[in-house]
Amino acid sequence: MSPQAPTPAYRRLSVEERRGQLLDAALALFAHRAPEEVSLDDVAERAGVSRPLVYRYFPGGKQQLYEAALRSAADELRHCFDEPREGPLLVRLARALDRYLAFVDQHGTGFSALLRGGGVAATSRTTAIVDGVRRTAAEHILSHLQVTRPGPRLRMTVRMWITAVEAASLIWLDEGKQPPADEMRDWLVEQFAAALAVTARRDPQSAALAKALAADA
Amino acid sequence: MSPQAPTPAYRRLSVEERRGQLLDAALALFAHRAPEEVSLDDVAERAGVSRPLVYRYFPGGKQQLYEAALRSAADELRHCFDEPREGPLLVRLARALDRYLAFVDQHGTGFSALLRGGGVAATSRTTAIVDGVRRTAAEHILSHLQVTRPGPRLRMTVRMWITAVEAASLIWLDEGKQPPADEMRDWLVEQFAAALAVTARRDPQSAALAKALAADA
Repeated sequence: MSPQAPTPAYRRLSVEERRGQLLDAALALFAHRAPEEVSLDDVAERAGVSRPLVYRYFPGGKQQLYEAALRSAADELRHCFDEPREGPLLVRLARALDRYLAFVDQHGTGFSALLRGGGVAATSRTTAIVDGVRRTAAEHILSHLQVTRPGPRLRMTVRMWITAVEAASLIWLDEGKQPPADEMRDWLVEQFAAALAVTARRDPQSAALAKALAADA
Repeated sequence: MSPQAPTPAYRRLSVEERRGQLLDAALALFAHRAPEEVSLDDVAERAGVSRPLVYRYFPGGKQQLYEAALRSAADELRHCFDEPREGPLLVRLARALDRYLAFVDQHGTGFSALLRGGGVAATSRTTAIVDGVRRTAAEHILSHLQVTRPGPRLRMTVRMWITAVEAASLIWLDEGKQPPADEMRDWLVEQFAAALAVTARRDPQSAALAKALAADA
């Protein structure tokens, strides 16, 4: 064994596994503290590794780790939207919301920190990551609705509802996760249908969709 | 005249007027550029004053100027919510939205930059300023509704709608201010009534308000 050989603990994980372990540790810390209050030392301690190891994986330091954690959370969030094209549309929306609320429940204040753009750690890159998740959510909804060319009023309605869901989730966390997740889910689904019904009064495309949703239920 | 006396141009304005002039110049620049792309030189040039003068008023530099501009915009936004307690509730909401949309129209991308927290210029202080405006908006709505003890479901509905209005305003700016402001206003008022009606299905307090709104219209 050469003197430079890593300790056995360091060799047990592959590069990808180690990276994942460090991101998990970072996300767990972001779940309870704002990004600016999380140091690489904290991440090293939480993961049970040395600080130099954290730097080896994230030579850009805290900002790089934060962005990587944000991307990892964004990818996980995107998976929430993967819903098979089966069954009534509002039931599909309810199932996606169940997964989304489980994510919010699990990541807690880390979710808030991520969504709020992370305070002083926010950059145009981190904002772009969060906006990317919103865009993906909107695309999924429009694709389930089988809309390929959404007009401005429909686009605005869908994006407005997505922002409203985010706001409601943050409030939900603030309020100690009350009302219960299944009531939140039903309420958010009904808010979607109601928002679409309002837009339907002045937009034929939304009117056709509102009709399809009602017939489908 | 002592050698340190300011040039005549500097003496013409009072401290408050000068400060206001610099904030106006800053807001005008934020209207077209992200805060991190606005330098104190730009503000000095726009206001037609020297850079040292800008520093004299904002010794904390760019961050202080940005926060002051944000506070000034926040105060202006709060004025939009001052609505006399006369006439049907939804008409009052429509009038407040008219003023709000005029503000969004006037400040354009500066409004976006402010609301998005200003990218790298964001701090917990700037976030608090923006959150303060949201809180004021919610308090005004609840006060017009004559609610002194809003339950969690009503609070969530009101705050969700406020976030939705913000999101819709940002999209409205992105879409070249289409649909027209008066259609936006009516649509947002109807979205409020619809959101409240959904919450009313499972919350007696919201149900009473929804009934009052309908009777009042």
